[in-house]
Amino acid sequence: MQIPLKELQFYKNFDELARDILDMAKEFMPDRLIYLTTFTDKHQVIIKLSETSREIHIIEGMVIEITETVCNRIDFDNNRPLIFEDMSKETKLDDLRKALIGANINSYLGVPILLSNGKAFGTLCAVHTDANEFSTKSIKMLQNIAKLFAYYLNLERLAYRDSLTGLYNRQFLHKYFEDSPAGGGVLFFLDLDGFKKVNDLYGHDTGDLVLREVALRLDQFVQQHQGFAVRLGGDEFIINMIDLSDKDEISQYAESLLARLSSWDTQLEALQLSVSIGIELYPPHASNLLDTLLKNADNALYRAKANGKNGYQFFS
Amino acid sequence: MQIPLKELQFYKNFDELARDILDMAKEFMPDRLIYLTTFTDKHQVIIKLSETSREIHIIEGMVIEITETVCNRIDFDNNRPLIFEDMSKETKLDDLRKALIGANINSYLGVPILLSNGKAFGTLCAVHTDANEFSTKSIKMLQNIAKLFAYYLNLERLAYRDSLTGLYNRQFLHKYFEDSPAGGGVLFFLDLDGFKKVNDLYGHDTGDLVLREVALRLDQFVQQHQGFAVRLGGDEFIINMIDLSDKDEISQYAESLLARLSSWDTQLEALQLSVSIGIELYPPHASNLLDTLLKNADNALYRAKANGKNGYQFFS
Repeated sequence: MQIPLKELQFYKNFDELARDILDMAKEFMPDRLIYLTTFTDKHQVIIKLSETSREIHIIEGMVIEITETVCNRIDFDNNRPLIFEDMSKETKLDDLRKALIGANINSYLGVPILLSNGKAFGTLCAVHTDANEFSTKSIKMLQNIAKLFAYYLNLERLAYRDSLTGLYNRQFLHKYFEDSPAGGGVLFFLDLDGFKKVNDLYGHDTGDLVLREVALRLDQFVQQHQGFAVRLGGDEFIINMIDLSDKDEISQYAESLLARLSSWDTQLEALQLSVSIGIELYPPHASNLLDTLLKNADNALYRAKANGKNGYQFFS
Repeated sequence: MQIPLKELQFYKNFDELARDILDMAKEFMPDRLIYLTTFTDKHQVIIKLSETSREIHIIEGMVIEITETVCNRIDFDNNRPLIFEDMSKETKLDDLRKALIGANINSYLGVPILLSNGKAFGTLCAVHTDANEFSTKSIKMLQNIAKLFAYYLNLERLAYRDSLTGLYNRQFLHKYFEDSPAGGGVLFFLDLDGFKKVNDLYGHDTGDLVLREVALRLDQFVQQHQGFAVRLGGDEFIINMIDLSDKDEISQYAESLLARLSSWDTQLEALQLSVSIGIELYPPHASNLLDTLLKNADNALYRAKANGKNGYQFFS
């Protein structure tokens, strides 16, 4: 699970630190343009530049299809930098060469920024219009700076994530609503059916495995749609989806969630694990309403449970 | 409230990051010895050196009386570096000059490391046996590096501190006991008498002010003695003191705590705010006992409350 851009907004001093990181890198490579990027599912986003360049066609906030980015070629698994000292000579990389030369970049150094969970956050890059060598020292220092930045990202991330599942926590949900989402949306309040039996019969280790598997399935769901998943605590989860108000459409999503969480492997099948869902729609500018929304969704959830479980209910 | 050395042990990657910080500083000033220090109440502690030097007499773990350290002269309030390019010429600083020349240091750059609460954590220093100039760039970079380190310290600190009062939180107490304190000690479980009335009559803002004032008084208490203070939540606090088992002595500390927390200004005097204390002694190697200790101390606290408040009781 990566760090989406929304989460970065909640980080203390993110902008200031990003600026400091670029300034420091710039000290080592004064003649290069330096920039920070992050990845979303299918894109790379340019977060910050060391300075505006008239010659190099990269700007802050720029979004690039991930298949078309050079950073995509970085070996994140082995935490290795990617270096092209003279792009015009890289005849084997035709598409890539065109993209970089289109941006007027002829030398490129990209260093991975890795989170402690092993996922790629993004890259710290140094580029130039001309062919240029990168010294061993400058590469090492850019890697060091990326590592310092990753420490910061990891620590900030802890504040907004549930440590067991890696999903967002209650604090993130509150912060998200405080931040006043302009559009309306819908909350799905999920509670596992039969979870107590898992702990009682197989112990807490198995219980934790089940919660992690639920989290994984919910994360896959939100990756495919517009939304995010939260673990409130215990076996309670929230899915938030925005710009959604059609009840038929919402029902389809609820059905999809029910289906994803009612199929378990042989050991657990006997327990008939499933999920019950309470659904609450909210209007635009609902920033003060979160507590009420959660109460209403919980109320609908209660009715779904009373109704025989493995089902969903709208609050109204 | 500073960061004591004990707390640093609980920080993730503290050693690794301190090493990275020194390595990075070393890149800018390859011929200097670089080191990180922190302050305790009356001392400065050398945490880490960039390398062992045969010429300069500073070693890791070294503890210096704060009155005798050069870092003591740093202007922390204005976050300014302190620079001596040729100590032998500083005839006005006789004592200091002797101390530094005794350590075989003739040029010194010290940069403050400031926490976000404005308190000094310590210093990042670069020294040399000879007289030497410090370039504006190298000073600026050392300041930048110190700032990055301070970000990290602040974020780690959040994990172990109560955000309202700045005292330690429950997580710290657990971590402390997990870390298996070798010696025995005593827990004072404090609960304010009459606190509910403060919130009811004057509102939560005044309630928060009272809690902050209690925290300040408890912090002064533990600064004067061996111990630390925790806010468990609400108006419940813990004082932990080590190497203490004599009940008469413990009673004196309890009396002192009662006295410190029963005197309030005119607005609050009418409410007769005070504190009740439950006391539980623990043996050496009590790492697994925390939950039981808290339960017992809470039990004793309950009896102190039942006994008419503003008093203390031992669990046994």
